[in-house]
Amino acid sequence: MTDTTFGHLTEETLALFTDLYELRMMQAAFNQGHNPNATFSLFVRDLPKNRGYAVAAGLEQAIQYVETLEFGERALAFLTEQGFDEGFLEHLADFEFSGEIRALPEGTPVFANEPLLEVTAPLLEAQLLETALINQVGYQSLIATKASRMRDVIDRRGDDQRLVDFGSRRAHGTDAGIKAARAAYVGGFDATSNVAAGEAFGVPVSGTMAHSWVQSFERERESFETFVDEYGDESVLLIDTYDTVRGAEIARDVAAASGVDLAGVRLDSGDLAALSRDVDEIIPDVDKSISSGIDEYAIADFFERDGVADGFGPGTALVTSTDAPAVEGVYKLVAVERDGEMRPTMKLSAGKVTYPGAKSVRRTESDGRYAGDVLGLCEEDCPGTELLVTVLEDGERVVDLPALETIRERARERRRKLPERHRRIDDPDPYEVRISDGLQRSTEDLRETLESRVAADSSGDGA
Amino acid sequence: MTDTTFGHLTEETLALFTDLYELRMMQAAFNQGHNPNATFSLFVRDLPKNRGYAVAAGLEQAIQYVETLEFGERALAFLTEQGFDEGFLEHLADFEFSGEIRALPEGTPVFANEPLLEVTAPLLEAQLLETALINQVGYQSLIATKASRMRDVIDRRGDDQRLVDFGSRRAHGTDAGIKAARAAYVGGFDATSNVAAGEAFGVPVSGTMAHSWVQSFERERESFETFVDEYGDESVLLIDTYDTVRGAEIARDVAAASGVDLAGVRLDSGDLAALSRDVDEIIPDVDKSISSGIDEYAIADFFERDGVADGFGPGTALVTSTDAPAVEGVYKLVAVERDGEMRPTMKLSAGKVTYPGAKSVRRTESDGRYAGDVLGLCEEDCPGTELLVTVLEDGERVVDLPALETIRERARERRRKLPERHRRIDDPDPYEVRISDGLQRSTEDLRETLESRVAADSSGDGA
Repeated sequence: MTDTTFGHLTEETLALFTDLYELRMMQAAFNQGHNPNATFSLFVRDLPKNRGYAVAAGLEQAIQYVETLEFGERALAFLTEQGFDEGFLEHLADFEFSGEIRALPEGTPVFANEPLLEVTAPLLEAQLLETALINQVGYQSLIATKASRMRDVIDRRGDDQRLVDFGSRRAHGTDAGIKAARAAYVGGFDATSNVAAGEAFGVPVSGTMAHSWVQSFERERESFETFVDEYGDESVLLIDTYDTVRGAEIARDVAAASGVDLAGVRLDSGDLAALSRDVDEIIPDVDKSISSGIDEYAIADFFERDGVADGFGPGTALVTSTDAPAVEGVYKLVAVERDGEMRPTMKLSAGKVTYPGAKSVRRTESDGRYAGDVLGLCEEDCPGTELLVTVLEDGERVVDLPALETIRERARERRRKLPERHRRIDDPDPYEVRISDGLQRSTEDLRETLESRVAADSSGDGA
Repeated sequence: MTDTTFGHLTEETLALFTDLYELRMMQAAFNQGHNPNATFSLFVRDLPKNRGYAVAAGLEQAIQYVETLEFGERALAFLTEQGFDEGFLEHLADFEFSGEIRALPEGTPVFANEPLLEVTAPLLEAQLLETALINQVGYQSLIATKASRMRDVIDRRGDDQRLVDFGSRRAHGTDAGIKAARAAYVGGFDATSNVAAGEAFGVPVSGTMAHSWVQSFERERESFETFVDEYGDESVLLIDTYDTVRGAEIARDVAAASGVDLAGVRLDSGDLAALSRDVDEIIPDVDKSISSGIDEYAIADFFERDGVADGFGPGTALVTSTDAPAVEGVYKLVAVERDGEMRPTMKLSAGKVTYPGAKSVRRTESDGRYAGDVLGLCEEDCPGTELLVTVLEDGERVVDLPALETIRERARERRRKLPERHRRIDDPDPYEVRISDGLQRSTEDLRETLESRVAADSSGDGA
């Protein structure tokens, strides 16, 4: 196949996954000799709707992107066509990230304004990473959060139903399909239906049967018999193709006739709570999976209506986070070197003000529960445990990437440490993130300076 | 880089982008000698919320997927680990699609229940394609539709503002970033900021500057001067970092002092309609781009409030189709060979009934406008022009893939042929898709047959 036309990125084109303006700014900076050290902060201004927390995820892929980013022949050829200078392209041909990255470990609950990542490097290098970093960390955090909410609804009941990602077909492209499986696992899922995600990340894969299997036989009974003949005790039968209750009866009869203990049945339509009870009367000892329209709200409703389930298979709502389909990550310049010193910087744009300076995120605890964060300046001594960890230094990785199981376990522990009022799926209480005195002061001072500079500039005095 | 860990698909792993159940069903079918010819239909049961039409897109990538799909060593090694049989894996090693695909040409308005694709092939082959086909066609159709709505709001005013996709960073993964750019172009966008999409599909790329550029200088004026020094008349300046009106004044002064005609300015925050008027008074002759929270509703509102713009840069709302983030594509078995004949098949699942049989989609016109479709059986003679085109036969492509420009032009023409009441962005009138008499009869007959079979099966008579 030609990767180009299908549009998948390869090693050869990954570097082009960036907004043109990054390269245009880089070229201007390069040619104009404007390459101060800079710190960019990746964060969200607001959590998505109805979210009391988000779960940081995607750091591993973000690091791998940074570590492997290079401009090969194919990328450079395209940039030549786009009119970039030869001198700049020679510089790109030697591109290698040489800076530092601090980050929140994956699986950590994160709140508005707290950096998920901070990148400190020469401006040209740090700028280039924006598009891909937001894309990868934003999407995985979105899905880990959605998954965490579903797991939490189950967990708080003291239950432990299986959660399996069925969303690949409805994910936004193939990368989302695979990354959703990973992020959902981080957030507390048990498996995915996506085989490629199993291969890429070691997420357990799981699968049952589709309606097409049943329909491809003249009789439902025959379709079950054939499947059971093939898979024996491993068989999971989909019983709602024609009539769920009758499907359950046929499944029971086929199992009995063949002497097989079914691994399970799946219900995929109708009034799932009511039907699950009916099915439970027919085959009480058989594992029951529920799919179709499953999200945290549907799970809560299912239990409220006394549904009986051993597992759920969320699809569209998981992988698109339907009720809030974006974590609006931004990547903002917060400090820049001038006269040999890192100086804080910020925008004043209406509704889009950012806090200046490289940050510290401290989390406090009380009785084993999270009791508020302090967002401060890097050099400030704030109470609580620092959450940001240095992952790259001088372009080299300085930590081992944890196993996915470790991240998943960390996510579970940290979710449980968050008081339940912040975990409600509707209208959660906001978690306190206090702006430190130092950061507050720095923000106010900088605002004054910037306002007076802009006033001077626009009246012509500043030239 | 290792493609595995970053999780991008490559030629080697593309075949694994499928749900495990497809492979489990295939293995059972293979071992049990159950491989009749089958027809699957890819369609949506309902259009997304507030959509009067959808725009078919993604066929080119779907075809490329089918044509290039193969199981290489790495894919087979993983499936061996997952416990698949040697005999079945040998069969997969020889996999090559040998069937037929009929499809709606990209850029065509499509409605609920109308096939976007129909695949006819031996069951094992047709089944495998489900996950990736829905994924690719579903996402691109979702985004082409969203883009078409934005273009239509502008078009119906007799305007022609530029629409540039700024969404890559908020897209769900990298594949979505690139495919969104292509689909948006099909739907009527002019360009994308995503460089990789330019390289992969020839979508024009476009870019301005970010706030970080402005902030990286001590003074906004200096940042503009440096950029203008580099790019001259090609400079587009972002003017809202500190104060939009003052930014416009500084841009004007910098341009005048350097004798440059600015290519444009961009506004990215605040009351965009009001600020655009203020800016227009300061620099009436300079091109104005508007970004931040742009979608079809925001564009309509912007014009209603007398905003002045030459272009818009939608981001998150475009690439996630925020108000309706999924086209819920399904891939249903509609016919299967029995005793040498293709027999219609359908599900009866509550709320998920499908129409049986391979389909014909006929579109009628009146006064050059679309006047209703007829969804019929393939062999039926219905009024109107047949929309489904055979694209693959015996596994070989039998049509030339049109250029992206051709698809875009087709999308524009066909959108304009749809009466405006179906194009309203809120509460559009539903477009009539009549179910043909033949299809109606076939559906009713089959339902009766299936109901009696299931009743017989579950009472044990059918065994």
